[in-house]
Order: sequence, then structure tokens, then C-alpha cells
Amino acid sequence: MKALVLEKQGEITLRDMPLTKPMTADSVRIKVKNVGVCGSDVHYYTHGRIGHYVVNEPMILGHEAAGVVVEVGANVRNLKAGDRVCMEPGIPNDKSRTSKLGLYNLDPEVSFWATPPVHGCLIEEVVHPAEYAFKLPDNVSLAEGAMIEPLAIGLQAAKKARIVPGDVGVVIGAGTIGIMCALSLMAGGCSRVFIIDAKREKLDIAASYDGLTPIDVTREDPVKVVRDATGGWGAEVVVEATGAAAVYPGFVEYSCPGGKAVLVGIPIDPVLFDVAAIQAKELDIASVFRYANIYPRALELVASGKIDVKRLISKVYPFEQAVEAFKDAAKLEPNIVKIQIEL
Amino acid sequence: MKALVLEKQGEITLRDMPLTKPMTADSVRIKVKNVGVCGSDVHYYTHGRIGHYVVNEPMILGHEAAGVVVEVGANVRNLKAGDRVCMEPGIPNDKSRTSKLGLYNLDPEVSFWATPPVHGCLIEEVVHPAEYAFKLPDNVSLAEGAMIEPLAIGLQAAKKARIVPGDVGVVIGAGTIGIMCALSLMAGGCSRVFIIDAKREKLDIAASYDGLTPIDVTREDPVKVVRDATGGWGAEVVVEATGAAAVYPGFVEYSCPGGKAVLVGIPIDPVLFDVAAIQAKELDIASVFRYANIYPRALELVASGKIDVKRLISKVYPFEQAVEAFKDAAKLEPNIVKIQIEL
Amino acid sequence: MKALVLEKQGEITLRDMPLTKPMTADSVRIKVKNVGVCGSDVHYYTHGRIGHYVVNEPMILGHEAAGVVVEVGANVRNLKAGDRVCMEPGIPNDKSRTSKLGLYNLDPEVSFWATPPVHGCLIEEVVHPAEYAFKLPDNVSLAEGAMIEPLAIGLQAAKKARIVPGDVGVVIGAGTIGIMCALSLMAGGCSRVFIIDAKREKLDIAASYDGLTPIDVTREDPVKVVRDATGGWGAEVVVEATGAAAVYPGFVEYSCPGGKAVLVGIPIDPVLFDVAAIQAKELDIASVFRYANIYPRALELVASGKIDVKRLISKVYPFEQAVEAFKDAAKLEPNIVKIQIEL
Amino acid sequence: MKALVLEKQGEITLRDMPLTKPMTADSVRIKVKNVGVCGSDVHYYTHGRIGHYVVNEPMILGHEAAGVVVEVGANVRNLKAGDRVCMEPGIPNDKSRTSKLGLYNLDPEVSFWATPPVHGCLIEEVVHPAEYAFKLPDNVSLAEGAMIEPLAIGLQAAKKARIVPGDVGVVIGAGTIGIMCALSLMAGGCSRVFIIDAKREKLDIAASYDGLTPIDVTREDPVKVVRDATGGWGAEVVVEATGAAAVYPGFVEYSCPGGKAVLVGIPIDPVLFDVAAIQAKELDIASVFRYANIYPRALELVASGKIDVKRLISKVYPFEQAVEAFKDAAKLEPNIVKIQIEL
Repeated sequence: MKALVLEKQGEITLRDMPLTKPMTADSVRIKVKNVGVCGSDVHYYTHGRIGHYVVNEPMILGHEAAGVVVEVGANVRNLKAGDRVCMEPGIPNDKSRTSKLGLYNLDPEVSFWATPPVHGCLIEEVVHPAEYAFKLPDNVSLAEGAMIEPLAIGLQAAKKARIVPGDVGVVIGAGTIGIMCALSLMAGGCSRVFIIDAKREKLDIAASYDGLTPIDVTREDPVKVVRDATGGWGAEVVVEATGAAAVYPGFVEYSCPGGKAVLVGIPIDPVLFDVAAIQAKELDIASVFRYANIYPRALELVASGKIDVKRLISKVYPFEQAVEAFKDAAKLEPNIVKIQIEL
Repeated sequence: MKALVLEKQGEITLRDMPLTKPMTADSVRIKVKNVGVCGSDVHYYTHGRIGHYVVNEPMILGHEAAGVVVEVGANVRNLKAGDRVCMEPGIPNDKSRTSKLGLYNLDPEVSFWATPPVHGCLIEEVVHPAEYAFKLPDNVSLAEGAMIEPLAIGLQAAKKARIVPGDVGVVIGAGTIGIMCALSLMAGGCSRVFIIDAKREKLDIAASYDGLTPIDVTREDPVKVVRDATGGWGAEVVVEATGAAAVYPGFVEYSCPGGKAVLVGIPIDPVLFDVAAIQAKELDIASVFRYANIYPRALELVASGKIDVKRLISKVYPFEQAVEAFKDAAKLEPNIVKIQIEL
Repeated sequence: MKALVLEKQGEITLRDMPLTKPMTADSVRIKVKNVGVCGSDVHYYTHGRIGHYVVNEPMILGHEAAGVVVEVGANVRNLKAGDRVCMEPGIPNDKSRTSKLGLYNLDPEVSFWATPPVHGCLIEEVVHPAEYAFKLPDNVSLAEGAMIEPLAIGLQAAKKARIVPGDVGVVIGAGTIGIMCALSLMAGGCSRVFIIDAKREKLDIAASYDGLTPIDVTREDPVKVVRDATGGWGAEVVVEATGAAAVYPGFVEYSCPGGKAVLVGIPIDPVLFDVAAIQAKELDIASVFRYANIYPRALELVASGKIDVKRLISKVYPFEQAVEAFKDAAKLEPNIVKIQIEL
Repeated sequence: MKALVLEKQGEITLRDMPLTKPMTADSVRIKVKNVGVCGSDVHYYTHGRIGHYVVNEPMILGHEAAGVVVEVGANVRNLKAGDRVCMEPGIPNDKSRTSKLGLYNLDPEVSFWATPPVHGCLIEEVVHPAEYAFKLPDNVSLAEGAMIEPLAIGLQAAKKARIVPGDVGVVIGAGTIGIMCALSLMAGGCSRVFIIDAKREKLDIAASYDGLTPIDVTREDPVKVVRDATGGWGAEVVVEATGAAAVYPGFVEYSCPGGKAVLVGIPIDPVLFDVAAIQAKELDIASVFRYANIYPRALELVASGKIDVKRLISKVYPFEQAVEAFKDAAKLEPNIVKIQIEL
């Protein structure tokens, strides 16, 4: 089958690959239709590694996918051939202690698409456990279906923030994940969300959504803006979505007393925290690793119209131009949020 | 000063009453401008009592109020003359154990407007602790300000529901409080909310809001509707907002496994709960008594446009016609949500 | 294999039964050694049913078990032959939505020992999923291992109570489960626990534990005792462990403002709740259905000595006298807490 | 009145000082009896400052106190002359937004004993708000009463850890506060607690308590010990109680997936956090600033015998030798936990 393969750092080709995962009684076979290009895919392409995950042999890229079921295993009851679905890319061991606790995303044995050495989904067909394939509501398109994965990270952050209705939110970083976090905070109960970045184009996209107020750090002092807008109180929820070392010592300044912070961005090296300042507000700090039990929620919120992910799809390439799609994505242009590939 | 006085059961007059509460260093004096008529006001008028609260002497009615500050005490820093404000009607003892815990609504010593023997706010001016008067944002009108009180009950319910973003909600009862609960669940993170009633007019008003799906029990089986709409799973959040005895044994049927229920309606006598059915889903049941720390959140949500309370103001009477306003309110017409009096 | 079989209501025999469950790669085969007799076992024996669970054909009894592993499946890594283990009696579908949420006890497909039509564990050997068999720490005996099941119910209640260190607890009912709840509240953070019953013998057993204060309702007004002991405040945690209809309308009276109640006892028919009184304290009510993710915690607490279950084993019968053990258990003598059968 | 005055860095004298705080209707006057010497008192003595709190004029030291009521204000109902009490040293503004939320410890206006420029309690008599004076149960001594303040910090940490019964705990640091945290985790629901330090004497004191397992980092790898003791899983609760910069990058290694950490130690400068490692376990990190609503809980736990603070009182000096007490305390001998002064 035709697949987009990262041969090694800096070299991707569209070529034949075998479908290696066998069908089982609990699996479905899915014709892949839409796949989003994630920053991690691009990073494997440009750097050949992320942290200690190293691409040592050819690997199919892609993990944000939607498609159409073409075959179902004998035990599968929730899906049938013809169903349009989106898929969770991480498959844990259902019997692990973490899975039993409802924390299956933290299972050390999890197998995740396009995380070496596991192949991704930029291939014509995939076999997937039926329990991790979710039927799209009728009013959710396949293109939207392929946006559920990045949205799920935002919603995991919003879930972990334990929002109380009417909380004021701050999201630091207006990249794809930052915007997903901001939309999730709004959908999840915040009255309004400040989103902070230095790139005007990204802020403009964020600002097109009701409730999101952009703060351009090149023009304004973001802490002062948040303080002034909240009568000096601060925000109840602060999401760090940059991973930039310079952000960490000061993010507590956005928070009100008793506030909550969520760490979404992933800095490669250890970063500085101002513990005494955190304590003075008794800040609660949650952290996010992918997501668990979020896909049904994400689909509900997209289907109900509370979250609009369509306007974040900046450009769609046919599968034949998948290599070009990656080359364009690697340019990291600030006006591009999400590039998708359509198979 | 002119005040609307409940002389005794069934008899209200608009007449002079003295302003008895003295100014203190921590108080503000407020010119009352808009007051909503609540079901409890009407009930005191028609029955002379609610449970063990009995009207034994003339009492000024009204507790849903907004107005304009005309004088501030020496210690007051958050307000100044001319500020438009809405007021929490319940004043606890700040030094009580419940207040220290952040549960000031549960303080047994609380003094609450228009709960015998405490006078209400349907009088030209009131003196009020500055800490329980909240400045209205510029884009929130006095009429909206007087809607914050009933909205606060809905938001207290939504806060207690510990909504996870994307939860499906069910509200049983489409009276004023039921609608406030439904709007609060939507603003607070639900993807959609089913609202259940037997009165078509009330459901039509609810249905005018995005995300609210009315269920008319005279035409449909509401449990079946919720089950079908959620793939058999049920709703994560169920709010009881009728107080009707017949509802309690069955409300668990709307819930998914591990769901949350909130008791908002107040039945006078004990009612039947199906404990074994509740346990089979490990339902968590929260209960609501007024609200605490909610006014700032309610104002944020109205100011940001996430909750529209304006369309629930069905009719406004001038103060001179306040007696007529109560007589009309007592008719309990199903197409009337909120009647306000403008001073 | 020899098994204790409930042939029909009122008739139990010790006779040969086949071992029907086949070994799989994820299973272990266990020589059963100690089995506790539970009230539900006795109830099936004396009544032939519990609610809508009806014994229509011969069923092996017993679900509180410990034993020794004699064979392990190919995939099993956490256990080996010779390990002493206790077993969770309920096996859910690992792939269900409830299981993914960490609520596997609420999976409607769960198969539970000695719940018709599923056979129990009073048989020489059982085959069991390795993930639901837990190795006993060296200092925990097999007899204690067979006590983990009833203790798990108490700990599920304590977990659901979200105890804050120093909470005062009240447990209504001093039967086996009531005592397990009281011990779990103490181990789980309460400073002291009042335990309420009408049977002096049961209270005496409870009173032998540090921190448990018995209240004999035939001699004292239990609400008054709790109020007086807490300076009028009430208890932060109230556990209902009787299932008796008369208890439900009044249990809120033990609670402080903002308290938490847990429903453990299972009344067959709907019972009366005083919703208005519950609301006046904004009581949070949790409910318990068996347990999930509790066995490792229960073993930790027994191994560390924080919970002593040994003194609750009132009498041990050899397997040959299992029928007599049940006949004795059916007498419900108040000085008997737990009867065990040793194979 | 005689008082222990820090004249300036390095100079303390026992001399007369006026009682400046006037009695009010809500206050009590208390004869001070026992005062513990805290590390912060010693630090002001030896360094003249803590962070940005600088001793610019003579200040009475001491904030861990118990005493006997000698006069009560007109409004005081919870206390009477002769009552033995312990006192919270921090007095917030009851009307602040933080106080209303139940977070009065985070009120920026809080006035705290012996935090410049506020005088402490090492003086013969103090006037104190009755709401922050707590009657000692009959079986709690004045010496124990003066231990409630440091215990309260440990209990605030345990409250914030949201312990689930049976959690395994780790406390890094066996100083007074570290031991208080460990005792609080045990009392608050942990099955056992590992306590880590490099000072053998401190570990020996900790080890004298049931449930506390000392780990001497000079002899063992503490991460390995915790991993091995938990079958590789890790601890559910990790408390950082050293404030030492070297500890922060690695504390996540003690944690299980989905664990909770609490920051109690106060590093002066920003310290390094390994965010990626924190995220891989979705660690939740809480932080502690003094305590709120803890004194009644601490008294319950000491009165019930669940927490023994007596054995932590290493030495008691009469008031006349208070200067010597401070000089001894400044030696920071590892076998000394708490020095008290008796007035």
C-alpha cells in the first residue's frame, strides 16, 4: 500500500509499504481519508528525533486521522463497514494498572502512531482496535474528524484545569495547540480567555473566535493586561502552551490566589520555577500527557457547534503531494495553523 | 421611603417605610433601580409562608436587585458613588466557621432579604455591606444586574456539578430556575443540555438558546430521548429543578455510569429515592442552597456574552404598579419567565 | 472438583462440580484456601434471590477468597506458581467505556462470583484473570486475604468520601460492612468515628478498635451525641451502612454544613430523603457499588498494620463442614462478624 | 510587659514592651504560656531578614503559641476566661475576596505574628481575635497546643495532597516540618510514608513513629528504595519539604503515574523542574502557604491520639532563659526537633 515514509532525517518518500498489523476479532480495518500534519511529524522529518525517540529505520508518519471503516472483527459491536470514524493514535495495554485507573494515556506500554519505532497512519489503510475508533456524528466531516486529535490535547488541558464556570483563562502560546487549549477553556466553562504570543498572524486567527482576547507581547505587557482586566485579581486558569524556557519562572504572575495552571508545552531541558511565588498563591499545577477518554467529548463539542475546528484547517493537499505538504509545513509560516493531507 | 410591603397573606401595599439599617464604615447606600419578582416573593404573598418561614408582621418584599451607589462608608475601597451595582441578598457572619470555609451561604446566622423577619429591597434605598455589592461591567444593564440573583442559583448548580468539558446535561424543569441551570451548564462546559417540562411555552423559550434541546414529556419519553441521543450511555450531569415528588425516584435513569446529579428544586416533604439504582451507577449527588462566591462569575459570563439573560425578562412594571406586577406574577402564566419592577 | 452448591432456595450441598472456565494466556489457576461467608451468600441460601437476581439453577456460592497460584498463563508476568493471592470477584470487559474511565465496577457486562448465573469460588480450584489476582505481602495471611473483599467495600466508601485529614466520621450500622467502613474512615484520615447500632454485641466489637466510639441507639440519642461531641458542628462524613428505610430521612442530621454522605447499605425499595434538609447543608452524597482499584490499597493498609481485619474473623470451618458453616451464618447471631471456610 | 525582642540582626533581648493592640468586642486577651521556636524566628535572628521581609525596627519574636484566656470581648461566645487555647498567628481581612473563598491564608492583607513589621507572641499577654483562638480539648496540654502551628503546615500539605486511603507517601526532608508532613500523611490516609534525609539523628526520630520508614541518602538510593517497595509503581504522594534546589529536578521520580506532589519547602531562588518528566506521569503539583481552616482538624487529631506531637518537643526553657533558647536553637543541632519557651 502507498504510504508516506520518513526514510531518515530530512528524507520522506511516498512509496509502497505492507499493511503489517493483522485483523483481530476486536479490530476494524479503516480506509484512511484525512490526516493532519502535526508539529511532531515535522520535527521527526527535520531532526530525525524528538528527545530520546530516535528514527532509526524507515517509519510511516502521521497520527491525526479520520477514515471510513471497511471491515470489522467478529467481536465489534460499536462499528460497521461504511462508518466514518476518527481514531485515537495511542493503544495501551487494557490490563495495565494505569489503564484500570482510567489513566491509559500514562501506560508505559502504549503504542502510539508515528512514535519510533511504531508506524503512523499516512497509509491507505490501517487496522485499529475498534475501542479506539469513534464514529463521527453526521454533521462532523472527515476533515474535522482529523482535527479531533490536536483538539483532544486542548480538552485534556481543560479537563485537568477543573474549570469553575466563569473562570478567566490565560493561554501562553498561540500555536495550534495553544489555540486548541484556548477553545477548550472557552467551551469548558471560562467566561473569556486571553491568548498570548509574539506572532501577530497567529493572534489574529485566535482573535476571530468569540471570547478569545489576543495579547501581543511585542506591544503590551501581558501580565498588566490580565491584571487590569480582572480588577487586579488575576486569572483562575493559566495554560502554558509554548514549552519556552523563558516563560516558566513568570507564569504564576497571571494567576489569582488559589489559581490553577496546566503545563502543556514540552520544554526539552529542565526549566526554572519560582516556587516561593507559586506558594504565595497556593497555585495548583497540573500537567498533560496526550489525553484519555477525551475523543467522545471532543466529538460532542464539535458536533454541537461549541468548538469550530474547520477554520483552523489552513490548507489541504492530495496524498500525491504529501511530500510537498511536509516541505511546506516545515517552513512553519505563522499564518498556517493546520495542514491536512487527503487520501 | 416608599416600599412594597406584604402586610399579611394576600395583601400587599405600596407605602412609606423607614430606612432602618444604619450606614457603617463598611456599607454603601444604594438607590434601588430594578428588582425581579421571584417565585418565593409570590409565594409569601399568596401563602404567607414558605415552610417554617412565616410572615408574622409587615415585610418588604424583593431580593433580586440592582441599583446605583449614592454613598460609601469610610472603609469602602471597591465602590464609589455613582457606581451601578447588583447586590447579594444574603449577609452572613464573616467570622463564622462556615464563612471561613468559603461556605458562607450555609451560615445559620445569614440574614436574607425578604425572608421573614428580614425586610427585602423593594424600597427606594437600601444600606448594604460593600463586600456584597458588585459593580456592573459597563456593558451590563441594571435590568440584567437584577437577573444575576436567579442566574447565581443556576451557576451554583453548575459549579457543584463539577462539569468535565463536553459533558451532556439534563435539566428537569423549565421554570426560571430550570432555564438558569440549563444556561449555566452550557456556559459551564456541557456540549448540549436537554431540558424537560410539560409546558410547551416554557420549552419554547428554552429552545431559543443554542445548545438547549427541549423535551416535552406530554409527547415523548424523556429517558428514551436522552438515551437514544447518547448512544445508550446517558447524561453526565442531571439537574433536578422542579421539586416535584414524582421526579425523584427516577432521575437516576437519565444518568450515565459515574454521573453527577444536582438537587436544586425544593420539595416540601421527604421524597422517594431509588438508592439501589443510584448505587448501580455510583451516582454522585450534590445539593444547592442559594450560592457563594458566584456573583463575580455571573457578571463575567453575562458581560462576555456567554449567557444572555435579557430575553428572560418578560415584562417590566414601574414601581407605582408594583402591586399589579405581583398580581400578574401570581397568575403563573407559562409564557412569563421573569417580571421586573423598575424604581 | 468438590464445591459448595446452592441447589435451590434453602438447600446447599457439598458435591462434585466441573471446573468449567478454561485457562487462557492471561489467566492463573488458583487452589482456593480461604473463603469468607458473606451476607449475600446467606441471603441467596435463605431466600433464593436478591432483588432481580434469582437462583434458577444450581450455583456455587462464595466470592471472598484467597488461595495459592498453581499455574500461570503464557502472558502472565505479575504472578508465578506458589504465590499466595486474593482475588477480585468481579471481572469486567476491559474494553468497555466504563472500564476505560477507571469505573470498571460499573461495567454492565461485569461477571461477578456467586451472582446468578455466575458460579462462585467455594470450589477447590478456580481459573481467574491474572490482572484481578493480587499477591499477598509476606505478612498477610490467607485468612486475612479472604477479608480483603469486604474491606474493599469499606475503602471504596472511604475513597468516595474524599476525607480531609481530621474529619469526624459517623457510620450508621455496625454489621460487617459497617465496621469495615468505620475502619476505612479511620485509616483514611478521620480523627475519630462514631458507629451507631442497636446491637450491643456488634458495638462492643467495633469499640475494641482505637478511634471508634459506639453509640447504642437503644440507650442514647445518636444525633445528640454527635452534636455534643463536635461542639454542635456535626460530622464531616456520614456513611449509611444499614439499608434500613427508617434511617434515610434523618441521616443528614449527623452532618456538618458542607458535609459528605456515602450510601453503602442497599435498601430494596425506594426510601425517603429529606431534600430540603440536605440542601440546607449542601450535603454531597456519594454512592458505592462494590469497588474499583481498591485491592492494592486494601493490601497496603493491612500489611502496614493500619487496619486489623483478623479480629473480625469470628469462626473458621473446614470445607467438609461448609454446609454447617452456612447454617450457622444464617442464624445471624449478633456476636458473629465473619465466618470463614478453609479448604 | 516582658517580651523577647529582636533588636536587630544578631541581637535579642528580654525587656519590657507595651501591649499595643486594644481589646475589641470580638477579641480575647490571652496570657501566653508556651511558645515554640520556629526556624523562621531563628532565621530573623541570625540573618535579620527572610527574602523581602526585613527587620528594620525592634520586633517581638514567636508565632507558635498556646495560653489561657483572661478576658473576652462583648461579642465573644466561643470562649470564656480560663479557657486554654492555641492561636492562629495570621489574621486576614474577613471581608476580602480570598477570605470569602475560604482561602484566607492567601489574603495579601494578612497580618502574621513575627513577620516584619508585625510583632510576635513572645510577650506575657496578647490580644487576639476570638475567631482565631481555639479551645484546647481537655486531654491536650498547653505544650501540645503550641505544637499545633507547625503541625498545621503538615496538615495543609496532607489536605492538598487529596490522599486516597492506602496511598503510599514520600516526604523529602526530615526537619520539623518534614516530620509534621509525614505524620500528617499517615494520619490523613497513607498506608506508609518514606521519609528521606541525610541526617541520621532526624531520621531516627522520624523512625520512632509507626508507619514512617526512614531513607538515609548517604547510604541508599532513595528512588530505588521507593520503587522496590512499591513493585516499581512509585508513591502516590510526594512532599518536598527541604527547599533545597538540588531536589526539584528529580522529585518526580518518586511518583507513580498520575501521582500528586506538594511543595512545602521554600527555595529562595527559582529552581529547576523537569517538565517533560512531570508530564509523562501527569503529575499534579500542589503548593502550600501556611494553612487555612486547619486548627480544628489538628486539635481533633492530637486529641484523638492519631498524631503524637509531644515526642517532638526536644527541650523547654523558662521565659527568663529565652535568649539562651534562641542561641541554642541557632546551633541547628540535628537531634533537636522543637525547642519551646514556657512563660
